Amino acid sequence: MSIHAVKREQANLTWDNSIPPAITIDSGDTVSFDCLDASNGQLTASSTAADVVRMVFSQCDQVNGPVFVRGARPGDTLQVDVLELQPGAWGWTAIIPGFGLLADDPEFQEAALKIWDLERDLEEGVTTFRERVDLGVGAAGSALERIRVPIRPFCGEMGVARREQGAFSTIPPYHTGGNMDTRHLTRGSTLFLPVEVEGGLFSVGDGHAAQGDGEVAGTAIETSMKVKVRLTVRKDKPYVNTPHFVSRTAERGAEMGYYTTTGVDPDVREAARSAVRNMISFLAAEHGLDRREAYMLCSVAGDLRMHEVVDMPHYLIGMMMPESVLSGH
Amino acid sequence: MSIHAVKREQANLTWDNSIPPAITIDSGDTVSFDCLDASNGQLTASSTAADVVRMVFSQCDQVNGPVFVRGARPGDTLQVDVLELQPGAWGWTAIIPGFGLLADDPEFQEAALKIWDLERDLEEGVTTFRERVDLGVGAAGSALERIRVPIRPFCGEMGVARREQGAFSTIPPYHTGGNMDTRHLTRGSTLFLPVEVEGGLFSVGDGHAAQGDGEVAGTAIETSMKVKVRLTVRKDKPYVNTPHFVSRTAERGAEMGYYTTTGVDPDVREAARSAVRNMISFLAAEHGLDRREAYMLCSVAGDLRMHEVVDMPHYLIGMMMPESVLSGH
Repeated sequence: MSIHAVKREQANLTWDNSIPPAITIDSGDTVSFDCLDASNGQLTASSTAADVVRMVFSQCDQVNGPVFVRGARPGDTLQVDVLELQPGAWGWTAIIPGFGLLADDPEFQEAALKIWDLERDLEEGVTTFRERVDLGVGAAGSALERIRVPIRPFCGEMGVARREQGAFSTIPPYHTGGNMDTRHLTRGSTLFLPVEVEGGLFSVGDGHAAQGDGEVAGTAIETSMKVKVRLTVRKDKPYVNTPHFVSRTAERGAEMGYYTTTGVDPDVREAARSAVRNMISFLAAEHGLDRREAYMLCSVAGDLRMHEVVDMPHYLIGMMMPESVLSGH
Repeated sequence: MSIHAVKREQANLTWDNSIPPAITIDSGDTVSFDCLDASNGQLTASSTAADVVRMVFSQCDQVNGPVFVRGARPGDTLQVDVLELQPGAWGWTAIIPGFGLLADDPEFQEAALKIWDLERDLEEGVTTFRERVDLGVGAAGSALERIRVPIRPFCGEMGVARREQGAFSTIPPYHTGGNMDTRHLTRGSTLFLPVEVEGGLFSVGDGHAAQGDGEVAGTAIETSMKVKVRLTVRKDKPYVNTPHFVSRTAERGAEMGYYTTTGVDPDVREAARSAVRNMISFLAAEHGLDRREAYMLCSVAGDLRMHEVVDMPHYLIGMMMPESVLSGH
């Protein structure tokens, strides 16, 4: 088995099976990728909310690759073992106007930006709101001192090329993976993707230092990421036609439990939106967070779970916040 | 503080604020309820799939109560501390034609019934498929021997009366609670409900010995339940306008991890349906389950989580099955 490397500049802004491979490997080989953050370098550790407004969306969410895996044929499954994940020294979380689960809400029409100091926090395993949140309107509240977000790095983007010809945006996920934004794909997890073209053409990107199920505000703790994966062709999993994965993420609320708000609605998406809005109200009322800080906290540390989806005409969705995040220790 | 009791026969089939209270208590009092299973006694430990077809749906999901709590006024919050939960000696899980997340799928048009022996299994803390699953078409596969479902009892129904006059079905949940079917509301959890009428008029029912997030097939491990709760009027949580809760459920996959299938679709409900179908295919292919057994297992032990809900036009939903359920130990 060989070790291969894909460089920072070997990145693309679309899934397109006509893009030539960055490298070619054998099944079972290991590949290291050096990935810029999802802003593609447009934001820096000294950016402000004004820079979020100026960000060019079509330049975001680049993916590094593609990697051609010898022997991978349409109908096969590509096994991706996530071996190592090394986030960058800093990260960012934003409210981007027009983006996110509550994009339509009048109170979230302005950009906001939070810069996280990951280098200092990585050793401790949690990161904090204790520094600046640029709401574009003033300073952050001191209540944020108590917030502690467990660092659980993963890559938001992992995928293979689609069968269809053409250039497909890297923003949405597909049945071939891509922008899955699935927080469980941490180190030690294994992802299975359906191969649709010769060689599979695997790419990866969108480093996240932490995120909740849903990524409700549209951004996680976005960061550059050095990631190492092993890619193996599997002929024995023909039933894999969307991403499957095996994960061992420690549940962040396992020790202390969760505070959960719910949404109840005939529309499942509206139920989820209501659950998030209710968590924002709780965090504002009980923990003194600005509502936009609360929305961002939901995105990086709260989990959307579908508690009940069968008792029509109402769905019940929960936004679950680990109490450890709120306890200050 | 006093201890009160609501009897098995003090039950109603609707939420209706004109139903006279079964009992009246002070804030902070404890109440015991003796609840029949959600079939309202229509199914027994010797029932078959044919009895599921004959079941009268309008007689199901009765709730015991209502309890008038002195001092509870519209705008207040009712705090429900779940103190004790004692499931019955047996339970049932069914595929009910026309009900459930995959009600439209041709392969789930026939009734199926699984009877669980809870009395024997309660000490061990897990229950098994090792006895009969009546698929109406033949015997269960021996692969079921390995399946172990952790017992995590809770009540599917907890709620207060609605402000609106009239009789509202107990099948859907409302912003006042009701058929929440939320598996996290186990012993030691605390539920907060918005009070809309004088006294709150709390009721409870729908005992579940185990269930996954979503209850995708429409039934959990349904069982009779003796439940004890403490009811306290809270004047200091005016932001509670849907159910909120604090939970400390041990995550069933914490030790061994999860196998997850995903669904990717422009419609969030379709993404969830796809995730469930893909888990059924995995359980059939890798664990030898009949597809209807697999659907029922998803309902009692698999969790629907919303991994990604912002990268339009596609949502990504995961059906997460704890590996401990599948490992045979």
